[in-house]
Amino acid sequence: MPKKYNVCVLGATGMVGREMIKVLEQRNFPVDKFLPLASERTAGQKVTFQNKEYTVKEATSESFEEMQIGLFSAGAKISAKFAPEAAKRKCIVIDNTSHFRMDPKVPLVVPEVNPEALKTHKGIIANPNCSTAQMVLALKPIYDAVGIERLVISTYQSTSGWGKEAIAEMYEQTKALLENPKAKIVPKYIFKQIAFNVVPQIDSFVDNGYTKEEMKMINETRKILGDEDIQITATCVRVPVAIGHAESVNIKTKKKISVEAVRKLLATFPTVKIVDDPSMGEYPTPIDCVGIDDTLVGRIREDISQKNGIEMWIVSDNLRRGAALNAVLIAEKMIEDSLV
Amino acid sequence: MPKKYNVCVLGATGMVGREMIKVLEQRNFPVDKFLPLASERTAGQKVTFQNKEYTVKEATSESFEEMQIGLFSAGAKISAKFAPEAAKRKCIVIDNTSHFRMDPKVPLVVPEVNPEALKTHKGIIANPNCSTAQMVLALKPIYDAVGIERLVISTYQSTSGWGKEAIAEMYEQTKALLENPKAKIVPKYIFKQIAFNVVPQIDSFVDNGYTKEEMKMINETRKILGDEDIQITATCVRVPVAIGHAESVNIKTKKKISVEAVRKLLATFPTVKIVDDPSMGEYPTPIDCVGIDDTLVGRIREDISQKNGIEMWIVSDNLRRGAALNAVLIAEKMIEDSLV
Repeated sequence: MPKKYNVCVLGATGMVGREMIKVLEQRNFPVDKFLPLASERTAGQKVTFQNKEYTVKEATSESFEEMQIGLFSAGAKISAKFAPEAAKRKCIVIDNTSHFRMDPKVPLVVPEVNPEALKTHKGIIANPNCSTAQMVLALKPIYDAVGIERLVISTYQSTSGWGKEAIAEMYEQTKALLENPKAKIVPKYIFKQIAFNVVPQIDSFVDNGYTKEEMKMINETRKILGDEDIQITATCVRVPVAIGHAESVNIKTKKKISVEAVRKLLATFPTVKIVDDPSMGEYPTPIDCVGIDDTLVGRIREDISQKNGIEMWIVSDNLRRGAALNAVLIAEKMIEDSLV
Repeated sequence: MPKKYNVCVLGATGMVGREMIKVLEQRNFPVDKFLPLASERTAGQKVTFQNKEYTVKEATSESFEEMQIGLFSAGAKISAKFAPEAAKRKCIVIDNTSHFRMDPKVPLVVPEVNPEALKTHKGIIANPNCSTAQMVLALKPIYDAVGIERLVISTYQSTSGWGKEAIAEMYEQTKALLENPKAKIVPKYIFKQIAFNVVPQIDSFVDNGYTKEEMKMINETRKILGDEDIQITATCVRVPVAIGHAESVNIKTKKKISVEAVRKLLATFPTVKIVDDPSMGEYPTPIDCVGIDDTLVGRIREDISQKNGIEMWIVSDNLRRGAALNAVLIAEKMIEDSLV
């Protein structure tokens, strides 16, 4: 009988936390004891795992005493506080927040892309930003084949990336505007009206005029691909979609690669699926990716504006692939490699 | 007393046609006789101009006999048929369809950008695609100052660009999904579900994997800026917005230009307005541009991924700036230059 592990989910009541619990269940992850945790604010709520109802407990340093794997998604501050406490108690933390991602001592991992980085772990592993995770999956086989010199990215990111309150806000605004097109909309979670609108701001601005979200995509992509020389620029935009991020990615490769060769590489890369037959009206849209593991790639074409260029359109479930699934895949890979 | 002109609007019942009539009225265009025209399908409907109701007449070649200026927006086929008939009868055609845009004998004009092209007209002047018009306005002062080598464009285009049926479709789908999140959506005008989704296809595909819309942006931008050497790539995406196109534009200039210099240039360029103060949460979104003449530019920043790069976000009312206003501005410029 395979070994089983004591697993806790910190942030169990959030969108990503709930998706983590669902993924653990769906993948039959070898869970022995299961412990859902949250901050004081939402502790006491109920969650269901393998047909059993659990009361979510408030996290304390002692919560991690008997745990072996901790999936964290309760915000950067809570990770900053509890991840070292968990690691000290031999509970390996797979952290979905941004807090440790750029820490040189913490591996930042998409298991299909840079599993080798897991070997260097010191108790904490970081899960990348959702928009980064799906993009590096589609880039990795191209990077390995011909190298990547530069990326120009524009994103179409769903409201779930900003939490369940942001989805609710989108639906509320939409209802109000359908009832009265002149309804006064006061934004609360998303920076501007998101219903029937698009908002070119995700997270706050930094000094160079980029947003934190844009800088995450730039810095995390370099760290995951292990190449600080890739030149990257990004514009991250919130769109009125519930779940599923889309990305328009313009790639300058180091050596020439044909569209056919790109298709062949992507076709065999794990958890990437090509949806790309313009003549049949086939390309992925956000609603196509909801609840599935695969990252969908379409609109693959030779960039007519530069010598070694490829254009592509990458779509993935940001809660699942970009967060919950990635965390569980990391845990599975660590078990496989006897790192737990 | 200034001279007045007999003006007809062909396609008077469509979204752009109605906006043309509104713009003629709002700008006090010197109209003597006014004649609203349409195809057989919608002739007979009523429109109002300067507080007077008109019955829209079915267009025939003879409709243009006494007309001096014809604003056309009834589809490429109707323009192909009637524009030469009108021109033959000394009615100058300002055509909003794609039919004549790339004809080397037909000037393609954004009046603030290349008014000199009007002088070569032979009776027909083409109005550019809406997404091209707003972009070249923001690019022109940069082009003149330091030259442009390459553009990487991703668009966020509203449903009104595909006609009033597409807006109605968006609202219908939205209502259906709010009532029942599992409602079966059958797309009709837009290629895929547009409510709570984004669709990376505008117009049909051509052989190189780009869409016609993308190729229009590429070819028309070169023609208007008069520079076939600018390298351009574009990904055009439909978003669930009613009116207002947004564009994420990455610019490689020939010579280095600072963000401050770009701001100064744009600040004095006609019909361009800078809305760009990240520290105050200021940047334009589609709902901000509806019904106004100005093209709004924000998120102006130095592109950290290349030596001479600028990133910007361009937002404009596609019906007004991208179509109706541009056509009327062309007519005004021709009057000013005694070309009518």
